[in-house]
Order: sequence, then C-alpha cells, then structure tokens
Amino acid sequence: MRIDALQYCRWSESVFRQMREGGVDAVHVTIAYHENFREMVARIEEWNRHFERFPELIFQGFSAQCINKARETNRTAIFFGFQNPSPIEDDIGLVEIVHRLGVRFMQLSYNNQSLLATGCYEAEDPGITRMGRQVIKEMNRVGLVVDMSHSAERSTLEAIEISERPIAITHANPAFWEPALRNKSDAVLRALGESGGMLGFSLYPHHLKDKGECTLEGFCQMVAQTADLMGVDHIGIGSDLCQDQPDSVVEWMRVGRWTKEIDYGEGSKSNAGFPPQPAWFEDNRHFSNIEAGLRQVGFDAVDTAKIIGGNWYRFFEQEFTPRG
Amino acid sequence: MRIDALQYCRWSESVFRQMREGGVDAVHVTIAYHENFREMVARIEEWNRHFERFPELIFQGFSAQCINKARETNRTAIFFGFQNPSPIEDDIGLVEIVHRLGVRFMQLSYNNQSLLATGCYEAEDPGITRMGRQVIKEMNRVGLVVDMSHSAERSTLEAIEISERPIAITHANPAFWEPALRNKSDAVLRALGESGGMLGFSLYPHHLKDKGECTLEGFCQMVAQTADLMGVDHIGIGSDLCQDQPDSVVEWMRVGRWTKEIDYGEGSKSNAGFPPQPAWFEDNRHFSNIEAGLRQVGFDAVDTAKIIGGNWYRFFEQEFTPRG
Repeated sequence: MRIDALQYCRWSESVFRQMREGGVDAVHVTIAYHENFREMVARIEEWNRHFERFPELIFQGFSAQCINKARETNRTAIFFGFQNPSPIEDDIGLVEIVHRLGVRFMQLSYNNQSLLATGCYEAEDPGITRMGRQVIKEMNRVGLVVDMSHSAERSTLEAIEISERPIAITHANPAFWEPALRNKSDAVLRALGESGGMLGFSLYPHHLKDKGECTLEGFCQMVAQTADLMGVDHIGIGSDLCQDQPDSVVEWMRVGRWTKEIDYGEGSKSNAGFPPQPAWFEDNRHFSNIEAGLRQVGFDAVDTAKIIGGNWYRFFEQEFTPRG
Repeated sequence: MRIDALQYCRWSESVFRQMREGGVDAVHVTIAYHENFREMVARIEEWNRHFERFPELIFQGFSAQCINKARETNRTAIFFGFQNPSPIEDDIGLVEIVHRLGVRFMQLSYNNQSLLATGCYEAEDPGITRMGRQVIKEMNRVGLVVDMSHSAERSTLEAIEISERPIAITHANPAFWEPALRNKSDAVLRALGESGGMLGFSLYPHHLKDKGECTLEGFCQMVAQTADLMGVDHIGIGSDLCQDQPDSVVEWMRVGRWTKEIDYGEGSKSNAGFPPQPAWFEDNRHFSNIEAGLRQVGFDAVDTAKIIGGNWYRFFEQEFTPRG
C-alpha cells in the first residue's frame, strides 16, 4: 500500500495515470491555499469534473475504507485538504461543512499568522489563538485532522498539546537534517510522535539537504534517524509534489492576496520558481525508488511498508470520523 | 411509517418532540427560499447545531436507509431541500456540491421566474430555460430531485418531460378541488403520476378548500379523487407546516430581496400573515387524524400506509442516489 499525504500537482490525466503506474493507492491533495469558502468550493467543483472524466483512475476518498476500494478496483483515492484555514473564514460552523464535503486535513496556518495560529515565517509566534482553541475542539469532534506543516514552533507544540486527537505534519522534514524554517525541531517531532501524530517526509527540494541534488541514500538515512527519534509507527511520505505547475502558482501560494509585493518564501529573487526535483523522485512513478532506498539503509519489509503507506492508513482509519 | 415531504417550521426542541409524539419518521425541511450558496450553508450550520443539541430526537437523513435507522432509534430523519434554485447561483457545479451536503429536493423556481424555470405567479411561462435543461440533467445524474411545487404550468409539464427520472411536487393540492394558482391542473397531475412522480398533499390553508375551515373529510375525499386521477402509488403528504413562524418569515418567503414593495402572495393586505391551520392539523402530532380520516373515506390499511409514508419511502429509496 502506497499513500502520499500531500501533493499539489497541476492535475491532469497524465498525472493520474502516473499515480496508477506508481501504485499510489491514496493521495491527500491540497485544494486551498488562500481561497475563501466559496472559492474553495469552486476547487471541489473542478475535482468533481476530474472524478467524472476519469472514473477508471481516481475517485474521492472519505475514509480509510475508500483506500481498500481503490486497491480492489485499481484506482487512486483522492482526499482533500487545506494548507490554510481561510476556507472556514471566521465561522466555526464551516468546520463541519467542509468535513461533510470530504476535507480531511486543515493547516491552522500557512506561512503567515492566521485567525487560528502562527505561520513559520512570522517573527513572533504568540501560539494558538482564542478561535484556534475552539476550532481545534470542533475539528476533533468531527474528524478533521489538524495539520501544522507550515506553522511556527510554539503554535505547533500548543496544537499538539491542545488537540485531544493526534495531529499531523503532512509534509516537512526534520530541521536536524536541513535547517529550513519549514522543517521541524526535535522537540516538535518528539511531541508529535509521543502524542500518536504523524510526520510525512517532504520531497520538495527546499526541504531537502542539497535541494535537487539530495541523494536518495541521504534522504533515507534521514528517515532512519527520524524513526529513531519519533518511532517507526509515526512516519510516512508527504511528498509535496507540485508537478507540472507553472511558476505563477508558486507565486499564488506564497503571496495570495496578502501583499502587493513579491514574497519569495523558501525561494529567492534569483530562484523564484518551482525548484527542480531530485532525479529519483520526479513523479508518482518513483515511489518504488523510495521503497528500495529504505530497504537499502536497513529498514525491513514490514517497516518499509509502514512508512510507504501503512502508517497513514492506520491514521486515516482512526482520525477521519467522529470518535464513537 | 410516516413521512412529511415538506415543512418549514420555526425549529425548536418543542417541534422536534412533537415529531416524535406524532410518530413522524422523516421530514423534508426547507433550508432556502432566496438564499445564495453561502447563505444557504449558514442555514445548514444552524441545522448542524440542532443535530448536535438534540441527537436523541433528530439527525440528518441522506438516504431511505436513514429512515429505517430513525425508526429503529425512535428519532426523526431530517432531509434538506430548497424552494428556489438561488443557492446554486449560476453555477451548475454546485448541484453536486449541495447534493454532497445532503440536499435532496430543489424547486426549479419559487413564485417568480428563475434562471431555470417559471414560477406560478408570473404572467408568462416560457418553459424550462437553457440552463434549466442542463441543471435537470445534472440533478438526474447525482440524485437531486426536481420539485415543481411553486412552478408554473408549462414549466412543470416540460420538467416532467425533460427529466429522465421522476420528479416531485412536494407540497400542493389539485386545482380541481381548490383553484389556487399554486394548486395543480389535472394535466400536470396526470403527467406526474404517469412518469412515476409524486405529489405531496399540502395542509397550508391557502391551498385548502375553505382554508382553515376545511374539513378533514373534505380533505380526505380530495385525496381519494386524486388517487383515482394519479394512482394511489404516487401520492403522499407534504404538509407545508410553518408552525410557530412569525409573520416576518412569510414576508421573507414572498418578497426576499426581489422587490422593495410588499407582495402578498397567496395572502392579501388584510390577511398578510400566516393563516390559521385547520384544527385537525395544527402540528406533527396530528398525523394520526389524517390517517383516521383516510380510513373513514374508504382507503384500506395498505393504501393508507402508502399515502402516509410508504410511497415517499419508495421514492426516497429510488431517487436520492446516482443511478447504478
């Protein structure tokens, strides 16, 4: 079983066929960066057209059972998520609404301060806000997973503490390996693992040591070190694959409507666009490379299967519905 | 089994308890008259709070199976519907979105011309519009029922013709009995029955002979005559109960935001508010009166059970999901 806990490709029949060639059973896809509720609904409408056009390749996933169905019918289950709470606006009632629409992950903040929490590029991190505490409680109630991939340190530690259910960092790497602002401290990773949460390892070059030049062996050794830190049951893949996107999209991700100036995020003026992927992970067909690499650095078949999909499956199974 | 195919009460614990006392297993409730998409979502949020506060009385229904669950757990399943297509705005993609949110009936028009069809108070009825044809097709695809309760004659006949699945008139009476503009001609009722559609008899005084003074016997004799016209398998109850609503609500229903003047709809300047109900149908506890009245005018137990719920159950079972 192969599960990718984050992608944001330019969706097309070609990408969906690569998912099938790569044997990827489930993908959590981002449907909102800065969209308000109504705009996010338009993104779901676009997905519904994909589902209608390519029913032999993909369908919308709502629960872990959908991943079983995907495997039985040789398709990929697509799960929705937000990288920003902007789609719930200032309205806690929208948490249940978006869950009904199939949204299963919501970041409490993207790179900036949100109504709920602080993003990783802010100078100050005052932690989870008043509304943030209420929204975490409501997300816990309905089964919408708190995702802190782009959030700042204190907010992330507080979210782990406040949430009564395990949370996720769907796409980031350890800062001990590559000290990007988006990567996570040992303290965060340890708290995440101890609380039953999940980390998805990112293949986005800005999160990798040596970026596009990162070696498969180096990546897999980092996975092994993280398994030592967090436990092998709390790690998976969240590739952050942004395949085929034009550079205008990374600008929307970084800048949205919050500034009139350009913000380069993890890039720079001279390197403003999407960075090139490492050759061993360019698209969905390359999951087998990671699997082989994990075996190479010493993971046995059981643990490799956990990392490549089994752990996310268990997490999806436990966290996407109200608690009984 | 008792099913009411339309109510728009001022929802409260008291009304929900009356549903239980009356043994009403399922109710189709109106959640939008003139609301746009975002405003309609706020109405669902209000319902979600009711479901959270009164889980021992009500829950949201999505399919006929939910009615079985309601009976097993002694609760009422609440199904959502619109009396106007305003919540889908000018966006056909919203048909699938609102179906996902649990909406199961949508009128193609309220009293006025809509983007899709003509309402019963317009002077001219040009029939189903270009968008209307597309939306009917999409509603057929996802399992959202076309409801023509407030639509004009030609539009209604065309909707029956164009729709590949049976449609509903959830709340109206035959014009042969009470010639209100909202009541339906023999031609409409015959076409509705022949196409496998359903009529829900209204208990709203403006649709009744002698309004609030209408007798139970007279009402039940009308049901018998309609059964002769349409077939006993195509009729049920759609009471249009607007219990406990202040008169400001009937004004919103009639006037919305489409005029700055007052429109009295079925009422008049001297009788502008909600009219008084007949004494034998004041709230959900009075379903047994209708049942007794139907037996009194000669319906046997089997046919009475069909009219009071069985026919709607079959219709819900067949029409709320995509066709296999």
